[in-house]
Amino acid sequence: MSAKTPLTIDTDYLRAFLEGSRSTIRDRGRAFATNPSLRLKPEWNLDRKRSTTLEGVKALAESGFTELAMPKHMGGPEDYSAYVAGFEELVAAEPSVQIKAGVQYGLFAGAIHHLGNKEQHERWLKDALEGRLLGSFAMTEIGHGSDVANVDTTATYDPTQQEFVIHTPHRQATKEYIGNAAAHARAAVVFARLITQGIDYGVHAFFVPVRTEDGATMSGVTIEDDGYKGGLAGVDNGRFSFDRVRIPRENLLDRYGHVAEDGEYSSAVHSPGRRFFTMIGTLVMGRVSLDGASTVAAKLALDIALRYALERKQFEGGVPGESVRIMEYGEHQRRLMPLVAKAWANSVAHESLLDTFDAVFKDENPPEATRQLLETQAAGYKAISTWDALETIQECREACGGAGYMWDNRLVGLHHDLDVYVTFEGDNTVLLQLVGKRLLQDYSRELKDIDFGGAARYLSHQAAEHSLYRTGIANVGRTISDIFTPALASKRIRSGQLQEALLSSRVDSMLSQLAQSLRPATKMSKEDAADLFNEHQHHLIETAKAYIHLLKWKALTERLREIDTVSHPDEAKALRRIRDLYGLTLINENIGWHLMYGRLPMARARLIEPTIGRLCRKLAQNAEDLAEMFGFTSDHRRTKIAEGQEQARQNEASTYARQARSRKDYPIDERIVRAKRS
Amino acid sequence: MSAKTPLTIDTDYLRAFLEGSRSTIRDRGRAFATNPSLRLKPEWNLDRKRSTTLEGVKALAESGFTELAMPKHMGGPEDYSAYVAGFEELVAAEPSVQIKAGVQYGLFAGAIHHLGNKEQHERWLKDALEGRLLGSFAMTEIGHGSDVANVDTTATYDPTQQEFVIHTPHRQATKEYIGNAAAHARAAVVFARLITQGIDYGVHAFFVPVRTEDGATMSGVTIEDDGYKGGLAGVDNGRFSFDRVRIPRENLLDRYGHVAEDGEYSSAVHSPGRRFFTMIGTLVMGRVSLDGASTVAAKLALDIALRYALERKQFEGGVPGESVRIMEYGEHQRRLMPLVAKAWANSVAHESLLDTFDAVFKDENPPEATRQLLETQAAGYKAISTWDALETIQECREACGGAGYMWDNRLVGLHHDLDVYVTFEGDNTVLLQLVGKRLLQDYSRELKDIDFGGAARYLSHQAAEHSLYRTGIANVGRTISDIFTPALASKRIRSGQLQEALLSSRVDSMLSQLAQSLRPATKMSKEDAADLFNEHQHHLIETAKAYIHLLKWKALTERLREIDTVSHPDEAKALRRIRDLYGLTLINENIGWHLMYGRLPMARARLIEPTIGRLCRKLAQNAEDLAEMFGFTSDHRRTKIAEGQEQARQNEASTYARQARSRKDYPIDERIVRAKRS
Repeated sequence: MSAKTPLTIDTDYLRAFLEGSRSTIRDRGRAFATNPSLRLKPEWNLDRKRSTTLEGVKALAESGFTELAMPKHMGGPEDYSAYVAGFEELVAAEPSVQIKAGVQYGLFAGAIHHLGNKEQHERWLKDALEGRLLGSFAMTEIGHGSDVANVDTTATYDPTQQEFVIHTPHRQATKEYIGNAAAHARAAVVFARLITQGIDYGVHAFFVPVRTEDGATMSGVTIEDDGYKGGLAGVDNGRFSFDRVRIPRENLLDRYGHVAEDGEYSSAVHSPGRRFFTMIGTLVMGRVSLDGASTVAAKLALDIALRYALERKQFEGGVPGESVRIMEYGEHQRRLMPLVAKAWANSVAHESLLDTFDAVFKDENPPEATRQLLETQAAGYKAISTWDALETIQECREACGGAGYMWDNRLVGLHHDLDVYVTFEGDNTVLLQLVGKRLLQDYSRELKDIDFGGAARYLSHQAAEHSLYRTGIANVGRTISDIFTPALASKRIRSGQLQEALLSSRVDSMLSQLAQSLRPATKMSKEDAADLFNEHQHHLIETAKAYIHLLKWKALTERLREIDTVSHPDEAKALRRIRDLYGLTLINENIGWHLMYGRLPMARARLIEPTIGRLCRKLAQNAEDLAEMFGFTSDHRRTKIAEGQEQARQNEASTYARQARSRKDYPIDERIVRAKRS
Repeated sequence: MSAKTPLTIDTDYLRAFLEGSRSTIRDRGRAFATNPSLRLKPEWNLDRKRSTTLEGVKALAESGFTELAMPKHMGGPEDYSAYVAGFEELVAAEPSVQIKAGVQYGLFAGAIHHLGNKEQHERWLKDALEGRLLGSFAMTEIGHGSDVANVDTTATYDPTQQEFVIHTPHRQATKEYIGNAAAHARAAVVFARLITQGIDYGVHAFFVPVRTEDGATMSGVTIEDDGYKGGLAGVDNGRFSFDRVRIPRENLLDRYGHVAEDGEYSSAVHSPGRRFFTMIGTLVMGRVSLDGASTVAAKLALDIALRYALERKQFEGGVPGESVRIMEYGEHQRRLMPLVAKAWANSVAHESLLDTFDAVFKDENPPEATRQLLETQAAGYKAISTWDALETIQECREACGGAGYMWDNRLVGLHHDLDVYVTFEGDNTVLLQLVGKRLLQDYSRELKDIDFGGAARYLSHQAAEHSLYRTGIANVGRTISDIFTPALASKRIRSGQLQEALLSSRVDSMLSQLAQSLRPATKMSKEDAADLFNEHQHHLIETAKAYIHLLKWKALTERLREIDTVSHPDEAKALRRIRDLYGLTLINENIGWHLMYGRLPMARARLIEPTIGRLCRKLAQNAEDLAEMFGFTSDHRRTKIAEGQEQARQNEASTYARQARSRKDYPIDERIVRAKRS
């Protein structure tokens, strides 16, 4: 189609700039991810997939990655965010390996680290982080998927033996979907209600051996296999139940609750609810890493789809005899480019989340506000990134047509594996309620203490004591009055100020509307209040989405402000296009709202759609750079459809066609050719 | 939560009413689909999955289903739409069986039927329809996925031997993704350019033996295996290439183009493009049946998710000690109910498509306008239904949480299998362009003959000669002036008249806007015209979507008008809710447009969101009826999560909890319980 001038982009520079301080460790992670021994083959049976995955998990430790997570008092750097960043890139090798490693090093070892004492670290942590002591993280129960504060497994202290008795009182209390359980775990960190001296102190974590050294199931433990899932075939999920299994008193991971020899309970945190969520809060790494890993997967899918679109030709275009690369079709650009923008917004926001993560975990006594910000951002970011990743992978799959459906071309496998990322480590819908509830509490002190029942109660355990959104909200307050000034309204639609004003005024209005709708609850019965809350649950979730989108947009904009436009003008331009496309896509997704609430004049609104189209066309001129920017190699993509072979074959075909048409033995009747074209 | 009065719905009546005249044959299809031998197990290898699928395909013939498709001159009823309706229900048994049967009976036998002569019917059709002669439908080539009019395989006539020489001139011309190819086909209907007396007459279909009776590959034929795909593991897709393979002259399926012994070509259709699309048009059944089958799959997923939501309890609600069924959560209702409405809209529209199908195929000389209507509707309906099905299955999967990810609970497998429905039998994006292009041609004669290049050219081959949308458009014309009358604007938002006015004025405006944007092309160079078209490709596709949604809405409304409100008042009410939810969901999805173009006052627009919420809540009161209405049994769902066992286990758990709290040996400190709830 018609000629345009693409930008000249130094893709390595721009990637490193956007990945920030963790770009080097990510390079190391990407390099590790090319290891062929990490890959599963579809024809293998479950056992072989699981054992190969286990080898990959061990290889990660051998490569020195998990050493990064070793506590300082054991001589390690305790640089969790570096570990997380490198580890996330594993998804490009094989999502099963990433998830099983996450269970082993993040959840199992992480729980020992964060919930255990130093003596327990010495006993178990080194072996766990080096992949010798394999373990599970046994929290979820059949009957309590999201409602983990109410698990029913009990750990009753017996002072005569100085032992805890771990017990599954009924089928619904069986630990379910537990990674590493079906085949490999020798121990499990089990979450159970601690009962001592006749008192239930709520949920605590216990180190419970489940298999002997030689793999036999421990007496009293029942292990079942979850078998086939939608994906992640290399991860051996299963169920644990316990029939009065005895463990030493010292196996209680007792950082937040201790039981003395005589059974006396003590804890620095008095409220059981608060205690539980403080414990859970230390385990936020799992959620954080899914935010990052799902974005890596989205980038990989886009890399494949962009390269395919640059090679694949279909249908003749304006020039007779020449087929058009599908990347040049307007609709194809509209399908892929906004997803590229989303991937970078999620990526950049994720790096800022890791900064917050460092602020909490590299500090002995992190400010409570920072800790709460981390939890809320992790919840919200993970929800949006994992959904965006699924949407992206699916769109890429479809954009590659029939080839996209072939196993060897990676995209279907990525979708199968990433599917459950929206569910585990917190169901996305529940996570967004958590975010929404916190926004609401911060917005209105009045609503803070109402018991809305349902999922809302779960959330209120985590009541924010600090106005962590004050900054965000204040910002909103400032911009909302600006938006109606003629000066701003007349600015061109790509103005960052306009985007911010629209995105943040939406959060502000939705939140105040919600607070107003819920206010009558202060004078209602508990049941009626729960009904009222339920009626506005959808609104709450949409508000949370709007807020998280705003934060991600801000993170991307922050990077745009920091790029050196003098030394890297074209890279800055490309980033500006990405940011604008992200912002306008978000606005366009809710354009009805912006119009309905008078935030955007109709004449302006009508410009958004064509501006998005134009941005997609412009970005598509640099489609190859955009693919290159993700930092993958053919050893990550591992598919012929993205590696030029397709192009070579097509050249062969068109050479044939040209030759054929000029050869005597393959005559083409010119009238026929004309007839076909008419 | 608070008590409401559900409607009293005779679900069998309402299903039969909505399924119309084909309800009985669908019952028969559903009964056949319970056959346990049709089911694939995830632990089987590819060979076993394929051979079991083949048995299922043969069982369908043995059950007498394919007899329905036997031509009249061979003593059959030739009732294709009945066959299609029954066959679609197979997807509930196993999508692999449905697709492989579709290849065998719909595409392979269908091509013999529609493209062959009576003698050829006698030779091959009975064996094909009875599953003894297994075959492939070899159209798609590696280099031409969607652009099938330009395949490169050649069939050159050799008058000395009275044979055609089938040849694959280069790798890109290899037949690709061909069902039945990798393992079972003995013959293939191969689409190749017919060359005789030195002239290329364009693409025709040839009956080509590919394997001997005992399964050996024929000399000159190369067969490759596509191996693992994203799903449909029971379907043996593969590749065919031909090295100067000779077949008798009589193997040309010559209904639309005949070659005499001396090589003289004759055809009733003179334009090669027109001829090809006439041939293709007779094979519309595949597309039609995907429209129906994907809707059956969506219903099955909803059946499972609704039943799970009715049983699964999570989090305590307004009543202390009582967990809430997740179906009662506002957000859960919002996630599932609009999808129920979409399923029924697609279902009812599909029945009307089958009526059109009958009108074309039960008539010796169907009116050209009806034939074109069928093609356009089949293309558009299939695109929307298959996307809706994927969205629905994914939402249901997520709504069932971790349980939704377990293979045994069906939802992931359905997604894996249905994924490619959006691609095969016409890529959805290409299909919608076809619809859009036809709308445009009908709207503006001026634009009819411009060569926009690219995919647009492909579409112009199928140029509408009759104004098949005249009815639709005229209708739009009538309502567009009404919409601004105060009388209508003040009507309540659930007014069907208002919904229709909004949905149809959108089609009308988008179309006229598009025509206006493209008008300059009449004075442009071919290349510039192609560029202009490309810039508006997204708009064209969105217009086509809006049009198809309008047709589906109308089909549902038509049924609503016909229901007997006196004898079945509650069923009529339920259907009204479904229709309104469908209409308002469509309007809400594009509410920005309706506001931007002044079709809906802001105050009205703000009512839509709460009205949708209210409709979802109302429909959720009858959630069990809605599940029941789909007509499946536990032998279709085949998952414990939808069959009451979950409920039984939960009862056991809560009984335990009650007893435990009253027992001496499991004392609960009341202060702790209170603390947890605060």
